[in-house]
Amino acid sequence: METGSIIALLSGPDQPGLVSRVSSWIFLRGGNIKHADQHKDTEANIFFQRVEWLSSDSDPAAEAEAFQRFASDELGMEVQVALSNERPKVALFVSKFDHCFHDTILRFKSGEMFGQLACIISNHTDLLAASQSYGIPFYHVPVTAETKEEAENRQIEIVEKEDVKLIVMARYMQVLSERFLQTVGSPVINIHHSFLPAFAGGRPYHQAHSRGVKLIGATAHYATADLDEGPIIHQDVTRINHRNSVQDLIRKGRDLEKSVFAQAIRLHLENRILVYNNKTVVFD
Amino acid sequence: METGSIIALLSGPDQPGLVSRVSSWIFLRGGNIKHADQHKDTEANIFFQRVEWLSSDSDPAAEAEAFQRFASDELGMEVQVALSNERPKVALFVSKFDHCFHDTILRFKSGEMFGQLACIISNHTDLLAASQSYGIPFYHVPVTAETKEEAENRQIEIVEKEDVKLIVMARYMQVLSERFLQTVGSPVINIHHSFLPAFAGGRPYHQAHSRGVKLIGATAHYATADLDEGPIIHQDVTRINHRNSVQDLIRKGRDLEKSVFAQAIRLHLENRILVYNNKTVVFD
Amino acid sequence: METGSIIALLSGPDQPGLVSRVSSWIFLRGGNIKHADQHKDTEANIFFQRVEWLSSDSDPAAEAEAFQRFASDELGMEVQVALSNERPKVALFVSKFDHCFHDTILRFKSGEMFGQLACIISNHTDLLAASQSYGIPFYHVPVTAETKEEAENRQIEIVEKEDVKLIVMARYMQVLSERFLQTVGSPVINIHHSFLPAFAGGRPYHQAHSRGVKLIGATAHYATADLDEGPIIHQDVTRINHRNSVQDLIRKGRDLEKSVFAQAIRLHLENRILVYNNKTVVFD
Amino acid sequence: METGSIIALLSGPDQPGLVSRVSSWIFLRGGNIKHADQHKDTEANIFFQRVEWLSSDSDPAAEAEAFQRFASDELGMEVQVALSNERPKVALFVSKFDHCFHDTILRFKSGEMFGQLACIISNHTDLLAASQSYGIPFYHVPVTAETKEEAENRQIEIVEKEDVKLIVMARYMQVLSERFLQTVGSPVINIHHSFLPAFAGGRPYHQAHSRGVKLIGATAHYATADLDEGPIIHQDVTRINHRNSVQDLIRKGRDLEKSVFAQAIRLHLENRILVYNNKTVVFD
Repeated sequence: METGSIIALLSGPDQPGLVSRVSSWIFLRGGNIKHADQHKDTEANIFFQRVEWLSSDSDPAAEAEAFQRFASDELGMEVQVALSNERPKVALFVSKFDHCFHDTILRFKSGEMFGQLACIISNHTDLLAASQSYGIPFYHVPVTAETKEEAENRQIEIVEKEDVKLIVMARYMQVLSERFLQTVGSPVINIHHSFLPAFAGGRPYHQAHSRGVKLIGATAHYATADLDEGPIIHQDVTRINHRNSVQDLIRKGRDLEKSVFAQAIRLHLENRILVYNNKTVVFD
Repeated sequence: METGSIIALLSGPDQPGLVSRVSSWIFLRGGNIKHADQHKDTEANIFFQRVEWLSSDSDPAAEAEAFQRFASDELGMEVQVALSNERPKVALFVSKFDHCFHDTILRFKSGEMFGQLACIISNHTDLLAASQSYGIPFYHVPVTAETKEEAENRQIEIVEKEDVKLIVMARYMQVLSERFLQTVGSPVINIHHSFLPAFAGGRPYHQAHSRGVKLIGATAHYATADLDEGPIIHQDVTRINHRNSVQDLIRKGRDLEKSVFAQAIRLHLENRILVYNNKTVVFD
Repeated sequence: METGSIIALLSGPDQPGLVSRVSSWIFLRGGNIKHADQHKDTEANIFFQRVEWLSSDSDPAAEAEAFQRFASDELGMEVQVALSNERPKVALFVSKFDHCFHDTILRFKSGEMFGQLACIISNHTDLLAASQSYGIPFYHVPVTAETKEEAENRQIEIVEKEDVKLIVMARYMQVLSERFLQTVGSPVINIHHSFLPAFAGGRPYHQAHSRGVKLIGATAHYATADLDEGPIIHQDVTRINHRNSVQDLIRKGRDLEKSVFAQAIRLHLENRILVYNNKTVVFD
Repeated sequence: METGSIIALLSGPDQPGLVSRVSSWIFLRGGNIKHADQHKDTEANIFFQRVEWLSSDSDPAAEAEAFQRFASDELGMEVQVALSNERPKVALFVSKFDHCFHDTILRFKSGEMFGQLACIISNHTDLLAASQSYGIPFYHVPVTAETKEEAENRQIEIVEKEDVKLIVMARYMQVLSERFLQTVGSPVINIHHSFLPAFAGGRPYHQAHSRGVKLIGATAHYATADLDEGPIIHQDVTRINHRNSVQDLIRKGRDLEKSVFAQAIRLHLENRILVYNNKTVVFD
């Protein structure tokens, strides 16, 4: 993304002239389109567009709002508009595994993510000290079968207080309830350690070892109430062979999980993803 | 594989000294080991070995037989012995799709396969002319729900007459019955157009498109009575995106199917595969 | 590409409103944009666009011509316009290697290429019979150091007679002279069997084996007078290890060469490639 | 590697019976071979073997020594023997880039490396605080053109004092002199941010961007006096396109560098690499 740009993600029923009307609106107000990408699902007759431009308006937020009204009212499209200079706040959910935890934090610190890591929420305290050494607020919210609802209320409270716009689950070992997902509103990205839809559910590396596959994978997807069934954002695989034990799969898989998870978070924070029909359009 | 070599594939309960006893047997008879590879499944306590050597015996077939007795009687191992100069006969089962058909035939013709393509068996006549232009015997064996048993009897007859040691299914669109598999005896390699265990069964590219995955795959496996559940030999994937229609998946998938299928056939014909517990050990 | 569509490739100095003016021109004449992709090289200040639309004009050729004038005269852009229903003629140059030869022909026959294979030109007769069995005209044009100029004149004659718009070199073992390239006018795609710029020149698999690399590659590029220095269209690699002989590299490399070459031809025939500064913009 | 095992790496002129003699020596002394892998370079007539076994001797170090004498004196092979329970000390050389730095340290901390990170040596102080927070000794050894020899003497002193057996250069921005390499004795692994031999030397991502390649790579190799010319251990690539700026290449490359570097260090510490003729045999 460009510094100081406006990014709009549009979707809706296809109609003639959409590309023309969007680009003309921007042009006539003195904007300079940096990137524009569109897609049509011809079966579903849905049009998707990501357009990024530099506004000549001294107040990009006002321009963004004006575009929102135009796209919504005049084009009848669903639209999300973001400013590249605004870095949305992200909450990192973790349990005990620390590979995606460290990797995600280091990427935010290196500046490769268009967002800010606002806080860490964990049902354990294993990563408390590491979080502190990174200087990131850590919230310990224990979860048991009995206290799940109460714990989720506490999580929602934190997420709201921290003004979180995106939740990312770095091998967080609890299923988020439908109620949580609906209440919290912000999207949730999860990393699953298999090539979905293969090996959904628990212990996917054990499942993969037992089935004797020759590749293992990782999948980043938006969490939905149906575990491991949400819209897939990114996937990758790596080769294994008969010599590899489950431990080897876990070790090799860690690298996959880290890179797939990071790529999904980055794509989301750069406003490159549109969701429809439980699928994603990824403008990368 | 080396010209004129003997290749043995051993498997059985692990016991001390197996590597030593096998290599000493070969050494003491003047053999020269070219390649040796072994594997232990420590959980299952099974030992696997592939050893390839040049015999000093003027009659490698006799030497191979002697090794077979040694490995079987003295070591108590299951053993298959092959001579690299013997090119086993292969039957190619096809229906209407021709991409794996052409690719497989051209690879045999180019000499990259340690086997001979003996005949083509098809339930359709679409590939009759092409088979003839390649100079390969073509058997048309139509199959309907009513004639399936009869058709399979005819297939078995052909396979036996042609002295076939391996059957390869190049997108052959019929399920082979358990009775067929048991009667025919020779192994059967199938190519499935998905990353198994994901998208088993029919129309896997449609399933993949509908689920919105970001990678599609192909899987070569030994056919068993459980459709798409046999031991996996080789797999590969390729990246897709939201722009790809089912037709694009089919086109991209063809390349995957060809290379994965060819690799599996090659590995089998070079005696590199051992099967156990519905998995494969692939010494490549 | 869509049936019946018009595809324009534009490039030129960036200026405000290009996306808007192009899309408005199409919209106002009743066209329906199917795909539009653009790119800016901000350093070089060049704008690139590929736009594909369905015209409402009963004469798409006239519409294409009108667009050409508009883009050239009013926008000051360089522009190439194509009709998806016109399948340009392609000449296949070969020597003795047949893997890319068969693969390319079979892909044209399968319908996956938006072009027609018009003829085969070879400096040898090894592939004459195979060409005939495919039903494709074969021209034998022997080349020696002494007859090179004469031979190239003959090749130019054939290419002009056959109305060839694209030449593809499927491991053709002669260097085309600058004079040939300039005279013939049509672009030439070559497949080089290494990951360029590594291992340019002769015997790249031998070079790779000698250097001990762990991956080998193939590169499809537009041929220029500087051997192996032309704009790169597509590249891919595959893993090798210390066990692989030069022969293994050659075998593994064949698969790479076939797929990389095919992908480059396909991209070109779908009008997805723009060349500038010895690089390519590939709208895929 | 197995807990408590002995690992031997042998190489030398091929001779009949090597596999047999090695395995018999181990078997007759009550050892249990866990893994054995061998390779012959038939052109150079060199035999290579990695064998790993569990000794029945209560003193594995004595057994290792006995094997060393046997392999050296009786077989006339070059041999290195290691005990899997001994974790060799590693020195990490860094400058200012921190991605390989953090990644390497976290991998050592996670236990996936068969070695101990003994110290960090840097010509800058940028990574001092981070090193301290990881609890690893940090030595600041500034290097200028004038003080290079002196600085290398200081580095050698540290490496000897810390009893370092392996040096790894995580984007250390100084060339080590031939004198340093010879004096220090221990092997040095470097990560170069290109697919060698392409883009050797400085600013490889800029070179790659300028040439317009479609893949970028990273290469881990043993450092020699010839910059970027040492034996290659591991390489990998990732796809790029015309949209990617040099900054994007740098970002994508970081992930490659981290994983390729880590893989090379791991392979070395597991005693899986033999070097000859400026190449590597990697028993993985």
